[in-house]
Amino acid sequence: MAEESKKGAAGQDFVKEITARSVDFSRWYIDVIRKADLVDYAPVRGCMVIKPGGYAIWEKVQEGLDRRFKATGHRNAYFPLFIPESFVQLEKEHVEGFAPELPWVTEAGGEKLTERLAVRPTSETIICSMYAKWIQSYRDLPMLLNQWCNVVRWEKRTLPFLRTSEFLWQEGHTAHRTAEEAEEETIRMLRVYQDFVENDLAIPVIPGLKSDKEKFAGAVRTYSIEAMMQDGKALQAGTSHFLGQNFAVPFNIQFLDADGQLKYVWQTSWGLSTRIIGALVMVHGDDRGLVIPPRAAEIQVVIVPIAPVKERGNVLAEVGKVVAELREVARVHVDDDEEHSPGWKFNEWELKGVPVRLEIGPRDLKAGQAVLVRRDTGLKEAVPLTQLKGRVVETLADMQSSLLAKARRRLEEQTTTAGSYDEFKQVIEDRRGFVVAGWCGDAACEAKVKEETGATIRNLPLDQPADAGACLVCGGKAKHQAYFARAY
Amino acid sequence: MAEESKKGAAGQDFVKEITARSVDFSRWYIDVIRKADLVDYAPVRGCMVIKPGGYAIWEKVQEGLDRRFKATGHRNAYFPLFIPESFVQLEKEHVEGFAPELPWVTEAGGEKLTERLAVRPTSETIICSMYAKWIQSYRDLPMLLNQWCNVVRWEKRTLPFLRTSEFLWQEGHTAHRTAEEAEEETIRMLRVYQDFVENDLAIPVIPGLKSDKEKFAGAVRTYSIEAMMQDGKALQAGTSHFLGQNFAVPFNIQFLDADGQLKYVWQTSWGLSTRIIGALVMVHGDDRGLVIPPRAAEIQVVIVPIAPVKERGNVLAEVGKVVAELREVARVHVDDDEEHSPGWKFNEWELKGVPVRLEIGPRDLKAGQAVLVRRDTGLKEAVPLTQLKGRVVETLADMQSSLLAKARRRLEEQTTTAGSYDEFKQVIEDRRGFVVAGWCGDAACEAKVKEETGATIRNLPLDQPADAGACLVCGGKAKHQAYFARAY
Repeated sequence: MAEESKKGAAGQDFVKEITARSVDFSRWYIDVIRKADLVDYAPVRGCMVIKPGGYAIWEKVQEGLDRRFKATGHRNAYFPLFIPESFVQLEKEHVEGFAPELPWVTEAGGEKLTERLAVRPTSETIICSMYAKWIQSYRDLPMLLNQWCNVVRWEKRTLPFLRTSEFLWQEGHTAHRTAEEAEEETIRMLRVYQDFVENDLAIPVIPGLKSDKEKFAGAVRTYSIEAMMQDGKALQAGTSHFLGQNFAVPFNIQFLDADGQLKYVWQTSWGLSTRIIGALVMVHGDDRGLVIPPRAAEIQVVIVPIAPVKERGNVLAEVGKVVAELREVARVHVDDDEEHSPGWKFNEWELKGVPVRLEIGPRDLKAGQAVLVRRDTGLKEAVPLTQLKGRVVETLADMQSSLLAKARRRLEEQTTTAGSYDEFKQVIEDRRGFVVAGWCGDAACEAKVKEETGATIRNLPLDQPADAGACLVCGGKAKHQAYFARAY
Repeated sequence: MAEESKKGAAGQDFVKEITARSVDFSRWYIDVIRKADLVDYAPVRGCMVIKPGGYAIWEKVQEGLDRRFKATGHRNAYFPLFIPESFVQLEKEHVEGFAPELPWVTEAGGEKLTERLAVRPTSETIICSMYAKWIQSYRDLPMLLNQWCNVVRWEKRTLPFLRTSEFLWQEGHTAHRTAEEAEEETIRMLRVYQDFVENDLAIPVIPGLKSDKEKFAGAVRTYSIEAMMQDGKALQAGTSHFLGQNFAVPFNIQFLDADGQLKYVWQTSWGLSTRIIGALVMVHGDDRGLVIPPRAAEIQVVIVPIAPVKERGNVLAEVGKVVAELREVARVHVDDDEEHSPGWKFNEWELKGVPVRLEIGPRDLKAGQAVLVRRDTGLKEAVPLTQLKGRVVETLADMQSSLLAKARRRLEEQTTTAGSYDEFKQVIEDRRGFVVAGWCGDAACEAKVKEETGATIRNLPLDQPADAGACLVCGGKAKHQAYFARAY
């Protein structure tokens, strides 16, 4: 055991500044994201500043998704921030859905503009206007593009990462020759999101179809992946839309098919945003702060040298050797700051969620070992330096998979089946979580649930049972099995 | 020699659609960037759409710079797009410089805003407002942040990549304890730009100090790297600013120093944008299209199988083996499209600037070879398949360094020394390029040159001679040696 690891007193105080999850989950969330330096409030209504710790997670999201997008044949492009008002108006449902949230540029370069420009809330309209130029023949299809950018939706009630007026995201926009091909793409990208979110972020999700009421403004069908937070509220973590020809017709995106016929394309769009950072915090965090899955961690291993002044030189020299070796297999940071005590540092790096901490002091070096502490379990072990590299690799891999397993167990525990509507109301009120129940498909039953319980249909899971039973509300024959929950 | 490489007829026609550089360099530029699919005009005044081919170059710029920024201790963050009008007003010179170009959001969420929001033209003001909160003690310094984002400057006359109303860039913003440290940072990042632009993009540059007239609005000193295009016009490729305390004072960014005194921080900012893509085109392109340096190329090697129908299966199987081997050392694309002739493909990939083309046909395979064609020189050679991997690596490395060497020779040829102001005027009019001359430091002499010749002081190179001689205009003692040129 490392020499100074008992001296946690100062650190204990520090940790107490975070509200316990059991006391107030919302306050816990705000405490963690601010104290762990992920985000700050901006002096612009409803906007946030993503601090380096938060942005580093976003960079891992970008890497993980971008690699998968390219592997499935997509390329990146960039379209303008501003969308002329006449474009926004072209797709009727789309404009109705987004108009209330749009910011408008009305003056620029010292003059009043003749046509107002919307700041993009999403880019279907501007991209469709270009696709109409670019797509002429079936040989130009499929068109598989993605864009990494900022978007703005003027929100009344905001929460950092989860709902802010400006946020960062990627938006994929594809055009296809047939409806079947576009539908396949819609599901393919939903599965790409699921694969990334589960395997890299260790967040288990339910992939499924949104109800008509909850679908994207302008889509024929919207699919989502839904995650479950520790407080029993669901969070939509990514969406993939089958747009049909809803944009192709008003934007006149036609191609000459091999049969000599002029046809409208079939389209999809799909997006995942900085909201996922909030999900990562709320799924894995604990009362000591963030817990970051190794694949999403900017720093995977932090080394805290524990060195009395006179032995500092020796210890740092040995630590230098360890670092050189570990950097071959992990992202390593050495905290050799002289201002703070080891105890303070332990707490600071736990707050920041670094997966593995190594403590190395003179006595450890004499014993030819380091003390390895794992963030998720808190387990400590002395590891011989000769085995350290292998043990770090094992620990990171194990932590990655056990975080997913743990979150999956919790998701299962938080998922119940309602025998009756009364039971459903009780569960939503007391335990929250997902309630799986039948739904007849009628919007009236869906609305009643929302009004009476605050829960919504999160989605109709892709894996449907042969018989969905009876509708939770009206008792009629259920068309679908649905996941209900209160949601962020 | 590959079987079908003679059949270039269709392709020759294709190439003719590009205006020759000698005929009209501006038209050549527009032809190349549009026909090579780098960019398109957007239906929003002064904005561009960056197509996948152009965005792929930007991704290489991002990778190359981001790696260097992190290696020099910087981290990424993200600040809001919108800046309240009161913030913009705080630094006097800054607002005077940028106000004429700002777009304003005046309505959002269905309501008129009480305070107008500028769409960021650069982020000094919003970032300084956060630094004032974040920086309390000397222990918080240096603050070394960078942001990748879009910015908007409402431009009257636009040219894709070089000058558009919206563009992508990175902006570094740092705060330091002392003026010396901030000045060191300013030069360090200028040298980072130089290193990246010269070594990755093969564009030689002149690093130097801008004159007061040409400096960034709000800076104490602005440094730039200046590149020279094939038409003899200069292009500012990146800037690094020493901001002194010009923002720290109005934004009240103070820290408690180790001596117990409250002091204002010293700041820098530095930016490089999608404009660099235009520079890359104008420095390396030729009458056949783009020439992309291997390190900046999305596709480094394109393989064109040349297969009569009955031998197609065999040829593609062999090509598959070659690809598997080459992918270990290069970014490889196989163009096995059946619609176009090999000749068409050769021209298409030359237009797109892919560094190395490999032609593989049945006769080549029988001879155990492939034909390697290098984009910059057009040289063809038959390479035994057993040596192909090594030869590709060598060719890419050689092309990277010889593009820089070639551009450097041209830069030297395009740089002249003026004996008199009359001679200077003649050179600027006839040959263009850089003219190196003495400058007394008087703004009147600088203004006279601009008015009479259209040339400006690009910068005062960091490497100054012991004696700068006489001022080009007034004949008085020169304080600096200056690089003059007409510029984009």
